[in-house]
Amino acid sequence: MSNVSVVHSGPWADLDRREFRPPGFSRGLFGKVFFKEELGLTGMELSLNKVSPGAQSPFLHHHVEHEELYLFVRGQGQFQVDGQVFDVREGTVVRVAPAGVRGLRNAGPEDLYYVCVQAKAGSLTGQTIADGRRVQGPLLWNEARVG
Amino acid sequence: MSNVSVVHSGPWADLDRREFRPPGFSRGLFGKVFFKEELGLTGMELSLNKVSPGAQSPFLHHHVEHEELYLFVRGQGQFQVDGQVFDVREGTVVRVAPAGVRGLRNAGPEDLYYVCVQAKAGSLTGQTIADGRRVQGPLLWNEARVG
Repeated sequence: MSNVSVVHSGPWADLDRREFRPPGFSRGLFGKVFFKEELGLTGMELSLNKVSPGAQSPFLHHHVEHEELYLFVRGQGQFQVDGQVFDVREGTVVRVAPAGVRGLRNAGPEDLYYVCVQAKAGSLTGQTIADGRRVQGPLLWNEARVG
Repeated sequence: MSNVSVVHSGPWADLDRREFRPPGFSRGLFGKVFFKEELGLTGMELSLNKVSPGAQSPFLHHHVEHEELYLFVRGQGQFQVDGQVFDVREGTVVRVAPAGVRGLRNAGPEDLYYVCVQAKAGSLTGQTIADGRRVQGPLLWNEARVG
């Protein structure tokens, strides 16, 4: 497999044109798109999400092994974990441990946009920065400018 | 540790008020904020990033064990992996394997906003959906509406 894969999923506003059908649901959910399979991710799952005004999670859920990270990009929402409710907005980042029972709703007049990432809890044992290695070499667009 | 932690990092436009200093750098980088430590994440690292027009990665890099996911939220950029250059924009999602040598630049007239997530390559062995468990219970804001 190549070291890189790319998906152009289009503007966030158009996310609800795509359908996701959870197991056991007779109707699809719109506004939720998963990327692990399409990108060939091996360490995490990503979804992009758009929630209309007045809409909310169809059910509460928790996880078995997966930590979840939620990042809110636009709009105003409310998030519930283990019976506690808090507000979310642009720049709000939420960690939920596998056992946390969670749900959310759009609490504002605009669409709510958010990112959700799943990864195996406890799996990232290395240091973020120490795992990186600087590489000498040209950034090719600079060469292109010169040429 | 609680099942949930929350950071309100503020509007994306203000990200460059915060400084990140990579090891060995005499000057800080602005417009990059990491969240693993602050949130207590155990399976992934998150950064939010803002790149000004004309700016680019200070160097190319690869990783040892960590897969990276890039999600572009606003603006227009160019991404380089292993000497190949491609365009990125709102909704572009990129997987880069640890060995991929990567860098990016803002190629447009506006600020470029992106998300980067690191997770250990090969660590997510479970199924995304199968890891979730539906929970019976009230979404509390509904009770609040009734009460």
